[in-house]
Amino acid sequence: MSISLFTFEPWATIHQQQVEDALARVMPSEETSPARLHSAMRYAVLGGGKRVRALLSYAAAELVRAPAKSTDAAAVAVELIHAFSLVHDDMPCMDDDDLRRGKPSCHKQYGDATALLVGDALQSLAFQTIADTNAPQALKQVQVLAQATGSRGMCGGQSIDLQSTGLLLTRSELETMHQYKTGALIRASTLLGAYAAESTSEAHISLLNQYSENMGLAFQVVDDILDATADTQTLGKTAGKDALQEKSTYVSLLGIEEANALVKRLYEQTLQLLAGFDKQADPLRAIARFICERTS
Amino acid sequence: MSISLFTFEPWATIHQQQVEDALARVMPSEETSPARLHSAMRYAVLGGGKRVRALLSYAAAELVRAPAKSTDAAAVAVELIHAFSLVHDDMPCMDDDDLRRGKPSCHKQYGDATALLVGDALQSLAFQTIADTNAPQALKQVQVLAQATGSRGMCGGQSIDLQSTGLLLTRSELETMHQYKTGALIRASTLLGAYAAESTSEAHISLLNQYSENMGLAFQVVDDILDATADTQTLGKTAGKDALQEKSTYVSLLGIEEANALVKRLYEQTLQLLAGFDKQADPLRAIARFICERTS
Repeated sequence: MSISLFTFEPWATIHQQQVEDALARVMPSEETSPARLHSAMRYAVLGGGKRVRALLSYAAAELVRAPAKSTDAAAVAVELIHAFSLVHDDMPCMDDDDLRRGKPSCHKQYGDATALLVGDALQSLAFQTIADTNAPQALKQVQVLAQATGSRGMCGGQSIDLQSTGLLLTRSELETMHQYKTGALIRASTLLGAYAAESTSEAHISLLNQYSENMGLAFQVVDDILDATADTQTLGKTAGKDALQEKSTYVSLLGIEEANALVKRLYEQTLQLLAGFDKQADPLRAIARFICERTS
Repeated sequence: MSISLFTFEPWATIHQQQVEDALARVMPSEETSPARLHSAMRYAVLGGGKRVRALLSYAAAELVRAPAKSTDAAAVAVELIHAFSLVHDDMPCMDDDDLRRGKPSCHKQYGDATALLVGDALQSLAFQTIADTNAPQALKQVQVLAQATGSRGMCGGQSIDLQSTGLLLTRSELETMHQYKTGALIRASTLLGAYAAESTSEAHISLLNQYSENMGLAFQVVDDILDATADTQTLGKTAGKDALQEKSTYVSLLGIEEANALVKRLYEQTLQLLAGFDKQADPLRAIARFICERTS
């Protein structure tokens, strides 16, 4: 197995632009009433981020050769859910963060009330975008995304996180929290891409579930490493917050060295997982590498 | 046309209990992790409210003779969306209301961060509940509900409301705001009930659209009348807030007498609309009367 013929950068750039364009189309213009809300939604969503979740949707869709239109909808939906969670997480009653993607966070720019509504409306728009495709497996996509977003997914993980600040978590408790908080949406991102096809085999779903589990964990461990080692300017968000807030992290639990070794191990396992596939799995391999080796 | 053989109270009581039971089933128990979030979700949703939106779903389903199971899901979904909007609207950065359905509002009981997550998770659960039915028109229901909830529905109406406080609105501006803020979800409630059937005729949808438009308007005018005339204990929420916050209302715009006359006119028009139907429209007639004559 080799990834020498596939280069990640141009593939990622094309698909980052593709989801950016699709996001810009799906959100009402700043002139559409209510103008302030639509302006704030576009501010929160457009022009930033690595779009890792969208890339996962596109990569999984490539594995199963799904059509472009319903793949765009999947990529848009997972990015809208991600953006909504960032807007709400940054609010004063949650993480109280003034900076997001190098800009003032949504509530700093538009006020708390509008930020609250922005998050709510972005969530609705995610489900609407999927439903509007009328694609054969759209209802399945709604199921997966709703479960990943709700109380036994992203929102649930955030709730466990809130309750855990200042407590020492075991590694198993930490993993449960992150499976909910970030893992669930990463899994949904790949599955929504796969369900963008007319039909999807159980074998593909099972493979993507394993892939997502590895990547969800790797993503969080890298996040913790970066929070502990990178600076605010590089990250585009406030660095060093975990230690400040006395949060249990993979770094506080394992130390930097063992955390780095865990990421390396997850990356190698993931390449093994994809060993039976030809170049249709190249994007999945490249994203795995990107997630494990990113520096911001 | 006569409603003498149909009595609203027993029909409403049965269906209020039916949606209450379905809501209690669809929400994870207070023992399911994250326990605090699930406890707060159940606190915010169960044991209160007139369930007008659920009754509209059941009444519309009765008109088109939809099966019980997917009608329950429709009724649950619209009540979850309504409950989520109340939790977020009551938060300090929005209406800052301490009292809801005669109890401390969700953020007073569980804190702002949990209330934020409760609203987010209830919204996801609404879409999940519909999608999980796998009913023939479930995707259509997701479309209608997402549109009614988002930036050109309920959230949009709330945004216009925020921007309008202290301003004098024209009647047309006031109607637009309320069409978004409450009308959209009332319309979605009847349409989701109708789409609980295996298929739904254009004629039924068109009738229910007109019915919903009248009822959305009547509901809001009555709300404004009650806010101006009833006391906090009767309402189970803080009375007299509109005048205090200098909000434009149908009462401030038309005066009490003309507002009452408008409600009466809307009720009569709605009975006319349903004149061609037999007893399958009795629940819709009775809800119209209830909405127009309610005192809390």
